[in-house]
Amino acid sequence: MIYFDNAATTYPKPMAVTNAVRTALQKYGANPGRSGHKMSMAAAEEEYRCRVAAANLFHAEGPENVAFTLNCTHAINIVLKGLLKPGDHVVVSCLEHNAVMRPLEALRQQGVSYTQAQVVPGDSDATLEGFRKALNAKTKLIVCMHASNVWGIRLPIERISAMGKEYGIPILVDAAQTAGILPIDVQDSRIDYLCAAGHKGLYGPMGTGLLITPNGDKLSTIIEGGTGTSSISLIQPGTMPDRMESGTPNMPGIAGLRAGIEYVSKIKPETIAKHEQRLMLRLYDKLSSIKKVKLFMPRPEFPAFVPLLSFNIADMPSEETAAQLNQHQIFVRAGIHCAPEAHKFAGTLETGAVRVCPSVFSKEQEIDFLVNVVGKIAKK
Amino acid sequence: MIYFDNAATTYPKPMAVTNAVRTALQKYGANPGRSGHKMSMAAAEEEYRCRVAAANLFHAEGPENVAFTLNCTHAINIVLKGLLKPGDHVVVSCLEHNAVMRPLEALRQQGVSYTQAQVVPGDSDATLEGFRKALNAKTKLIVCMHASNVWGIRLPIERISAMGKEYGIPILVDAAQTAGILPIDVQDSRIDYLCAAGHKGLYGPMGTGLLITPNGDKLSTIIEGGTGTSSISLIQPGTMPDRMESGTPNMPGIAGLRAGIEYVSKIKPETIAKHEQRLMLRLYDKLSSIKKVKLFMPRPEFPAFVPLLSFNIADMPSEETAAQLNQHQIFVRAGIHCAPEAHKFAGTLETGAVRVCPSVFSKEQEIDFLVNVVGKIAKK
Repeated sequence: MIYFDNAATTYPKPMAVTNAVRTALQKYGANPGRSGHKMSMAAAEEEYRCRVAAANLFHAEGPENVAFTLNCTHAINIVLKGLLKPGDHVVVSCLEHNAVMRPLEALRQQGVSYTQAQVVPGDSDATLEGFRKALNAKTKLIVCMHASNVWGIRLPIERISAMGKEYGIPILVDAAQTAGILPIDVQDSRIDYLCAAGHKGLYGPMGTGLLITPNGDKLSTIIEGGTGTSSISLIQPGTMPDRMESGTPNMPGIAGLRAGIEYVSKIKPETIAKHEQRLMLRLYDKLSSIKKVKLFMPRPEFPAFVPLLSFNIADMPSEETAAQLNQHQIFVRAGIHCAPEAHKFAGTLETGAVRVCPSVFSKEQEIDFLVNVVGKIAKK
Repeated sequence: MIYFDNAATTYPKPMAVTNAVRTALQKYGANPGRSGHKMSMAAAEEEYRCRVAAANLFHAEGPENVAFTLNCTHAINIVLKGLLKPGDHVVVSCLEHNAVMRPLEALRQQGVSYTQAQVVPGDSDATLEGFRKALNAKTKLIVCMHASNVWGIRLPIERISAMGKEYGIPILVDAAQTAGILPIDVQDSRIDYLCAAGHKGLYGPMGTGLLITPNGDKLSTIIEGGTGTSSISLIQPGTMPDRMESGTPNMPGIAGLRAGIEYVSKIKPETIAKHEQRLMLRLYDKLSSIKKVKLFMPRPEFPAFVPLLSFNIADMPSEETAAQLNQHQIFVRAGIHCAPEAHKFAGTLETGAVRVCPSVFSKEQEIDFLVNVVGKIAKK
């Protein structure tokens, strides 16, 4: 089996992740932060280690700025719903995932408006200008993916963030596709809200996500409940991370995520990215020589692109291509990838696209095998 | 180690649950419902098996009525926020957990009001009357726990549901403490919204919860995002369960929950309850003979009580008792248990209470050991 669907979920996980999940089920089997007994305390300590690991990797001020969520979508919703009021305006990139667009559409029903900023791949001046032009007097937030989940286009979030600060506008960065692959420093880059998936580049289990922010105490909440703290009060605690973590957390998932973050931190995102980049350039170059293959984007060089590539074979529906690859035990994702805006951008809304995304475990031979099969399909 | 903190999280888990989580990490490692390749399909099938198992256990009309959530709190919030509008009124029991009270307090800021119905342990006529008296012309929902997480008091939800139906008022049942222990038939009992924890009586991993309802399509949403369905649309899908499941699900957790539900379904909740009940009666009778022990509630007979018991030793703070038990490797939970209302009910807001909750794996000898240690602490 050749697995290239790592932009949806990385597979396999490092052995340490699987082991951490198993250990959590066996040794940290009690509810963290609820009881005072040894196993509950041990669970709370493991949870805390994950917060520390995440805070270190993303250079957050402290572990209390790290809240655990069900997934990146959950984290994004917390910020959008917690911050925006009727009459507010939001600027987003024209490539955003439905994790951003669908909550924004729901908020639009309540009087929030948004503008999509034009993105010019590889031209960060032009992209920055697109964002600046989209601002207005009511803009309360900039929401920007770090990289497109369909085209791998990297957005200049550091510059966009700095530009927003000129006008006093905070930024939410959707790092679903980049956390663990690109170095992210939330303090240096002045990222007010970093939302990340745990199960992609951080190699944690599915069912984990992160919200990293120093401003959690200022957000209203979408979910309230027991937090194991200030239990006597019927009012949701005001302090992070409790404020955003109601009910029992995904303890085995968090333990696995801790191991995943430590794994990535040890190898370093830059090293992982370099490995994946090499594979994607190899893929790009080889696919370029197959006549019928459409690549849509320029060669995915750093820093304009992250290691992720989507293509089609002539006008073949992407699902059909993926189905044929599946018969050769090559697993990729086809269709719209929950990101219709990205497909409008490239004119692929009809066909979708076949997405290839490697992981730290991917190999050159796997790329070559994929290219070989694509070549055969294209020749039919 | 003697673990009696099963009302927070059951421990240990059945071997099948741990195995299912491991298998999910290894064999269902891809994102379910997103891609068309074999591993993604296998993950989607495992997810579907869990839906079917839950629908069967709770007699839901179909698996599409079952949505997976992060925890029971998440499920409760989905219903409360999805249903209630400013001006609406809610009736709750006087024993509710903060998972209900905190979202209701947040909604109160937006113009939703609520009334707490008086509960009379063991007298379902009087309890029913308490709920009826609390209704008014604006009541849009009854919210009722199936059993108190502090006192084990069981509420006559079937009768409360039927009474609500006379007035056209739906009911949300918080089955956090009863799912897997008491038989629940959502159709027979006309439960409009059943919210359950996956990690307690269903023996799934932490990080899993269930919302079971035929009315999910009529609720507005608190979280929107990618669902892997209708991806071309920026509007959240209207159909269950997609509507309530945005972003990547907790696949290993759901696999474990599937195994847990199957485990419980095979043994049967009634059988598990009988075993636990026997242990709790034994505990009650033995603690009754220790002079300084306060038991607060009557002997926990069916059907007025579920197998769960809280006590104190004279006026000793519950945390102190629990700390001493912890030194003997007995793990219980002390304090308020995220349910100040339940402590107001029994006058234990100051001391909290020491809670003992068995599981299917608990043994008579463990009860006897606990009693022995409590006796020693009481004698000091």
